[in-house]
Amino acid sequence: MSNAEVAVWELLGTTTLLLLGVGVVANVTLRRSLGHGGGWLLISFGWGFAVFVGASVSAPSGAHLNPAVTTGLAVAGKVDWARVPVYVAAQLVGAVLGAALAWLAYKLQFDTHDDPAGTRGVFCTGPTVPGWPWNLLTEVIGTFVLVAWVLLSPTALAGEHGVPRFGNSALGYAAVAFVVVGIGCSLGGPTGYAINPARDLGPRIAYALLPIRGKGDAEWGYSWVPVVGPLLGGALAGLLFLALPV
Amino acid sequence: MSNAEVAVWELLGTTTLLLLGVGVVANVTLRRSLGHGGGWLLISFGWGFAVFVGASVSAPSGAHLNPAVTTGLAVAGKVDWARVPVYVAAQLVGAVLGAALAWLAYKLQFDTHDDPAGTRGVFCTGPTVPGWPWNLLTEVIGTFVLVAWVLLSPTALAGEHGVPRFGNSALGYAAVAFVVVGIGCSLGGPTGYAINPARDLGPRIAYALLPIRGKGDAEWGYSWVPVVGPLLGGALAGLLFLALPV
Amino acid sequence: MSNAEVAVWELLGTTTLLLLGVGVVANVTLRRSLGHGGGWLLISFGWGFAVFVGASVSAPSGAHLNPAVTTGLAVAGKVDWARVPVYVAAQLVGAVLGAALAWLAYKLQFDTHDDPAGTRGVFCTGPTVPGWPWNLLTEVIGTFVLVAWVLLSPTALAGEHGVPRFGNSALGYAAVAFVVVGIGCSLGGPTGYAINPARDLGPRIAYALLPIRGKGDAEWGYSWVPVVGPLLGGALAGLLFLALPV
Amino acid sequence: MSNAEVAVWELLGTTTLLLLGVGVVANVTLRRSLGHGGGWLLISFGWGFAVFVGASVSAPSGAHLNPAVTTGLAVAGKVDWARVPVYVAAQLVGAVLGAALAWLAYKLQFDTHDDPAGTRGVFCTGPTVPGWPWNLLTEVIGTFVLVAWVLLSPTALAGEHGVPRFGNSALGYAAVAFVVVGIGCSLGGPTGYAINPARDLGPRIAYALLPIRGKGDAEWGYSWVPVVGPLLGGALAGLLFLALPV
Repeated sequence: MSNAEVAVWELLGTTTLLLLGVGVVANVTLRRSLGHGGGWLLISFGWGFAVFVGASVSAPSGAHLNPAVTTGLAVAGKVDWARVPVYVAAQLVGAVLGAALAWLAYKLQFDTHDDPAGTRGVFCTGPTVPGWPWNLLTEVIGTFVLVAWVLLSPTALAGEHGVPRFGNSALGYAAVAFVVVGIGCSLGGPTGYAINPARDLGPRIAYALLPIRGKGDAEWGYSWVPVVGPLLGGALAGLLFLALPV
Repeated sequence: MSNAEVAVWELLGTTTLLLLGVGVVANVTLRRSLGHGGGWLLISFGWGFAVFVGASVSAPSGAHLNPAVTTGLAVAGKVDWARVPVYVAAQLVGAVLGAALAWLAYKLQFDTHDDPAGTRGVFCTGPTVPGWPWNLLTEVIGTFVLVAWVLLSPTALAGEHGVPRFGNSALGYAAVAFVVVGIGCSLGGPTGYAINPARDLGPRIAYALLPIRGKGDAEWGYSWVPVVGPLLGGALAGLLFLALPV
Repeated sequence: MSNAEVAVWELLGTTTLLLLGVGVVANVTLRRSLGHGGGWLLISFGWGFAVFVGASVSAPSGAHLNPAVTTGLAVAGKVDWARVPVYVAAQLVGAVLGAALAWLAYKLQFDTHDDPAGTRGVFCTGPTVPGWPWNLLTEVIGTFVLVAWVLLSPTALAGEHGVPRFGNSALGYAAVAFVVVGIGCSLGGPTGYAINPARDLGPRIAYALLPIRGKGDAEWGYSWVPVVGPLLGGALAGLLFLALPV
Repeated sequence: MSNAEVAVWELLGTTTLLLLGVGVVANVTLRRSLGHGGGWLLISFGWGFAVFVGASVSAPSGAHLNPAVTTGLAVAGKVDWARVPVYVAAQLVGAVLGAALAWLAYKLQFDTHDDPAGTRGVFCTGPTVPGWPWNLLTEVIGTFVLVAWVLLSPTALAGEHGVPRFGNSALGYAAVAFVVVGIGCSLGGPTGYAINPARDLGPRIAYALLPIRGKGDAEWGYSWVPVVGPLLGGALAGLLFLALPV
């Protein structure tokens, strides 16, 4: 598969992931939306099924959708390091586009929200209790679980030509969706579970660039945590894979 | 497969879809129903499993259940354009029947609801913030995700004789159900996610015709949005499919 | 398979179904239970996964678990009428046992519930708005959807020797669980969705017999509705199957 | 497979199970967490998907994750008794580690919780109404359902060399996750469903050892119930299996 094809499929999948993922947070957050106040389980299922749809449509490139997954697979020797920049660039561009599409879908709800400066949380993750070493650790642990599962689950890996795949059926995509629902339910509480540098940085860039009514600060001071934490977690999972007798 | 057989299976599936879909909104909306106030996740899962049941029983005709899906498949060259009117007519008739059955199942709850003029929302979608260009865009985006998934997911398409199928097992039907749950969670907030012209127009006709106690206006002025938006979204997904290297 | 074996597996499955099904209603209803006030989606998923577990363990007998399913399969010619009494008797005995086990599991919560006469709803279904013709119709419609799905879904039927099976894998059991979750979400609001004569009659007998603290009347006057309605719905689904070109 | 390999995979799986399981209770319990007050369905799905992830990653050792499962399999003759101590020791160590990791992930939320002595419930199960014979019975019944399903479901057992496996795909892991979600929904109300000695004892040891801010008593007086009850339930399920014509 050419680099251009990898880029097309990853971009398509990550755009879909962020459209649906930012969408569910908008649905729960914005006062004039039908899902307003829908709770954490709605958020967790929304992101999980966002992964399901995004991963399904980007099957040809292996459905990474996440620089931390790409990094972990590269550390584990499953993806060529020369491919990594192609994946990551497509994921980041897709994440910006997906967040922008979600904003368009909820345009009137953003325009009528009663706390316009408070809509950053629709786009960006953030800690409920700031403290970067612990926030970072939470992101490391959550991403470690995701990437370790991708590397160790008998379902997740059925790749060829260095492109990991989730089998030939919907089952692998459902499986990774369930894992992401589980991480959201269980480890999303402290920092909003970026567990994916593109998931946080892409929408944060979109938030900074888009003419969102009455928007506030993009909190760039925190933005490195949901980038560095997931990359560390993914790399550690790759090292674990190399150490295990598999 | 003859046109008559296509019509029978699509009608059966769409009747089931709307019976269960209108049913879950009735369950959450009507004050004397056990699911009253059950929230958006209940709505989203209810519609998703409605798709699951409806798609399973209409397997022989390919389980379109949705004129936007049929349109997208025709644009992508997967369904003969001559078949499209057969699919759409059956889907629309099925949607009217399904909505009428849901009303019968909840007859006593409609008769005892404390805001009888407010029961239109059980049948018809509507925007939380009116503004047709944005409402239309929301429906285009939501339907685009659905039909793009149907065309691109390795699970969704395993058809022959121009009739796409979700494989031989429950897995494909679960997959499309998960996609619809995801779209509901993520993109249903602004307009109630018709994402299917039959899903909105059929029950709106039923609402206008049935002797529902104290019913109000059917809001025909909005009714073109959940028809045109999904058809546009489905057609755009078909064009995307033609443009991609698949 | 001998009649005795059919009876053992159906009894085991129906006991499990009712233990878990009555259990989830107890969990949501009883004030000293951790799931108290958990809402309709918890009820719907609880019953759905109760079907999943019960159907899995009674795979050898075809996992009917429900006289309406057995009746529909007999009408459709899929089960020998001579077998029907064996199935139904085992289902009913299993339902009584399962409800009794659920009571034992929640014994201390029953003993400390603040409205002891109001615990009938843990065992028996009942209408939110009484009116038997409509209550009956709701049960007919709900059961018709279930049994029509069992007969028409390409996943549900893969039987031999007159014993229908849900395939060799967990997929068929997950599928029927999703259908039951869907019917609960969508059609459970008016009458509490017995959709199974054993599910209502078995626990009602248990409620009448067990020494439940401060219990009230068993409302035998309504008890024929959740028996006759599901049997009618199952039989109608069998007739639909015979009429369709399958 | 060597004892050392069994220990590695069981430890990895049980660590993951408890990290995610204790995590979801922390998310719902702790006031500064995003899932605070998320309800019983969030708890039930959280533990279910925790089983999904943990069981997937420990596939090589058969994914027991639970001394009651190991015991039931040994009674049923599916696992060599000489292996049992290896499984149980690894499960217990993994459970302590997983609980400690969950505490680290939620460190700042523990430090800012308004009722620090009340955080024992994040780690340990406990009865809503104390009374050991009934509490014990609830744990016996819940675990019996789990282990009977593992032994009887056509999906669950496809082992070799005495190591039971959930097939080659994600389906078996999803199936056991659904069973655990179901038991949580239906039988978790009275005692918080340990249904696994390691799930309760491991985190209780972690709670006693870790420097958790303002922590209270570990309630060792109750701790034998969620150990003995599940072991009894698992052994009874093994005996049932031996008695049935399978």
